[in-house]
Amino acid sequence: MFFQTTFQFPVFKRGFHLVTNFIENKIPELAKIKIGFVQIFLQHTSASLTINENADQTVRIDFENHFNKLIPENENHYTHTFEGSDDIPAHLKTSVLGSSLTIPITNGKLNLGIWQGIYLCEHRNFAGKRTVVVTIFGE
Amino acid sequence: MFFQTTFQFPVFKRGFHLVTNFIENKIPELAKIKIGFVQIFLQHTSASLTINENADQTVRIDFENHFNKLIPENENHYTHTFEGSDDIPAHLKTSVLGSSLTIPITNGKLNLGIWQGIYLCEHRNFAGKRTVVVTIFGE
Amino acid sequence: MFFQTTFQFPVFKRGFHLVTNFIENKIPELAKIKIGFVQIFLQHTSASLTINENADQTVRIDFENHFNKLIPENENHYTHTFEGSDDIPAHLKTSVLGSSLTIPITNGKLNLGIWQGIYLCEHRNFAGKRTVVVTIFGE
Repeated sequence: MFFQTTFQFPVFKRGFHLVTNFIENKIPELAKIKIGFVQIFLQHTSASLTINENADQTVRIDFENHFNKLIPENENHYTHTFEGSDDIPAHLKTSVLGSSLTIPITNGKLNLGIWQGIYLCEHRNFAGKRTVVVTIFGE
Repeated sequence: MFFQTTFQFPVFKRGFHLVTNFIENKIPELAKIKIGFVQIFLQHTSASLTINENADQTVRIDFENHFNKLIPENENHYTHTFEGSDDIPAHLKTSVLGSSLTIPITNGKLNLGIWQGIYLCEHRNFAGKRTVVVTIFGE
Repeated sequence: MFFQTTFQFPVFKRGFHLVTNFIENKIPELAKIKIGFVQIFLQHTSASLTINENADQTVRIDFENHFNKLIPENENHYTHTFEGSDDIPAHLKTSVLGSSLTIPITNGKLNLGIWQGIYLCEHRNFAGKRTVVVTIFGE
């Protein structure tokens, strides 16, 4: 059984945002799958997806600060800065974190660990709505 | 054909550990699949999975040292440090490396390159057993 | 429906290279799939795959420069340097960027965003042809 849908996230400010519930609510077909997968694919090159701690907002704040340290703005070696100082850093962060997630389904639910949540990582200062393709397959 | 199992790794000390054989031994169903996939999903936010060189242990030692340099402990900007100086660095390393792997199956075997092995990356100083959900699908 | 093929990329020099068209031309079976996936798995530990901006070559140049800054050569803590100063940095870059991609198929095509392209990331100074296992499944 395959099911695929495309939807948009609301506009998020720059930073790391918990979107597990938002995604689950968009895919009621989950309940029909006993064993399978959800693949979540973000169609952008300046925002990313990752899985991390779902309870304490300080994790997401530390993520924003540490990724800004690993991949700072205004480095001398940057040339792709047409759209501002957050342009090439957003691309670099996207490739370090990744554009897609594959999560197992077990008995109609995402089989995440207790502390795992899905983060939408917005790397631009002023981005629009981000589009995601979600594909479910299983039996 | 879908098959799914959940198991635990033994307790590993902080560092990068080769677990290819351990995983293969847990999934004899591999042998039944001509073309397909294994998806390996770690249910944690302070340990991760990656694929890298399977022969020389110095690679894994250099990985521990370099990831400690990229994501050091005791940075001034960290706030999520309740569980010790290895707390937020473990979360950050997990998102840089990733929580899951998808590996093709060909003729009943993981179709890894000659030098590729699966690493369990333990980022905490004192962690318990790590749980993994392994899903096989194919024909 | 499952389909799997193995092929080699041409030899690339060290850096980030756009290979979307090269891959699509190797998998005409794409056209038969209404909903599904392509999984692209690189069988190496010193080259990697990522998705990023497909239009402006300065992005790929900035990627090479910034990854060389995050993971420089000749660090004092490196021990795995038998094959030269690009040896362990190539392994580290591979795990930060990843060895595989999973991309949704919709109506016979890769459902990438407008600006998304597939990069082959060559981290060695003098590498041979890189081998990739591409698996398509869907309906």
